[in-house]
Amino acid sequence: MTSSDFQERLSRQLARIPLFHTARPDFLHALSAQAQLISLEKNQILFLHEDPASRFYLVDRGRIKLFRETRNGEQAVIDIVMNSHLFGETSLFENDLYPYSAEAAEPSCVFSLPLSVLKAEIETTPKTAMAMLSSMAHTRRQQDQELEHRTLQNAPQRLGCFLLRLLDQQTDGPGSLELPYDKTLIAARLGMQPETFSRALSKLKAETGLQVTRGRVELNSVQQLADYSCTACSSEFPCKDLCGKKF
Amino acid sequence: MTSSDFQERLSRQLARIPLFHTARPDFLHALSAQAQLISLEKNQILFLHEDPASRFYLVDRGRIKLFRETRNGEQAVIDIVMNSHLFGETSLFENDLYPYSAEAAEPSCVFSLPLSVLKAEIETTPKTAMAMLSSMAHTRRQQDQELEHRTLQNAPQRLGCFLLRLLDQQTDGPGSLELPYDKTLIAARLGMQPETFSRALSKLKAETGLQVTRGRVELNSVQQLADYSCTACSSEFPCKDLCGKKF
Repeated sequence: MTSSDFQERLSRQLARIPLFHTARPDFLHALSAQAQLISLEKNQILFLHEDPASRFYLVDRGRIKLFRETRNGEQAVIDIVMNSHLFGETSLFENDLYPYSAEAAEPSCVFSLPLSVLKAEIETTPKTAMAMLSSMAHTRRQQDQELEHRTLQNAPQRLGCFLLRLLDQQTDGPGSLELPYDKTLIAARLGMQPETFSRALSKLKAETGLQVTRGRVELNSVQQLADYSCTACSSEFPCKDLCGKKF
Repeated sequence: MTSSDFQERLSRQLARIPLFHTARPDFLHALSAQAQLISLEKNQILFLHEDPASRFYLVDRGRIKLFRETRNGEQAVIDIVMNSHLFGETSLFENDLYPYSAEAAEPSCVFSLPLSVLKAEIETTPKTAMAMLSSMAHTRRQQDQELEHRTLQNAPQRLGCFLLRLLDQQTDGPGSLELPYDKTLIAARLGMQPETFSRALSKLKAETGLQVTRGRVELNSVQQLADYSCTACSSEFPCKDLCGKKF
């Protein structure tokens, strides 16, 4: 890749991140000047929980699994991040230690960016600090909702919610989508054992007429899936927090 | 209460909030000048989810339940906040709408403070924005941990974790604590049905020798409770995020 290809690809990705929508050009330039593109093989570890953090990351392509391990060796998947998502940036507020581990769930490319440049910008530019606050508030709201769902929704409803957030929610009629990653990973992302996930999918098919063929989900009525899943949610459907964004 | 009593009580409470530790005196003065002390009876609603927000709150005494309701009328308890805790302040990043409802779980007093003053300070004073970011990162970390625990810990371990966070974790030997609120509320806070909570408590007593008498918990060995509960947690014991603070 030539240097100008690299810069163009990076600029395109940075422009998609809400945190940088109001950023000063000088700041973006300083970030880009110290950026690197890193290729990861499937299952390659990028960093481990509590490693010292000097870089944060932007997914260019692929899927990165963020997770922590318990003392007895079980894995808690915090998120699966994809194209145009940041991760590792909150290490700034965690004594410069990564708050989770990051591993490529498939062959992936990530831009590595300097945390020190981001930190200096937040400390000196109120509008960047406000953008960071908005971004953290957004994550906090999603976590709040996820905690609520783990308490009040059953497994088929939680899977239904996951799918609804990938669909065009404005449509009245049928809908379809490609699963963003394989079923094992979706189960882990939803905090379900594989067998719980399988039962949840069977139940959801029976209740809503949803069909899955080789990673493609088809349903006759988006509203029917919402009626089934969103009854145990405190937010309205369509989901207001999406604003055109996906999970 | 005289005006100087009021100001002294408010200043004492504000000084306990990490968000205000590095605050400018002028800002604290502006907050205090527009503060009100509100008394709430048990079960009195202070505000509802998605009400327009112009004030945030600081608990002076009592217990405030923060919750949301699902479409089918179930309640998700987000937190029970007590003495020297803020709530409602993140409405700033939620289009000035409260992200949950607030109700007094017992007779309580709260200071009501102007959100506009906080917002202006965050927008113009980088160190206040940084303090707000640290405070939100702290909440986010706790939510992350709670999500992890809901996935990987069983109910007795989650109850054990709740109790451990109220104990002096530095001790090797026996420990004791007063339950911060009644068992029904603890069950709701932990997202458990009352019967699940009862079973969890019985199991915890059997596994760790813990005893409960009229709201007082006694145990022979804090370490034994940690050995039982923390095996399904990705953080080390003692909990690093507490730093002398309680749940």
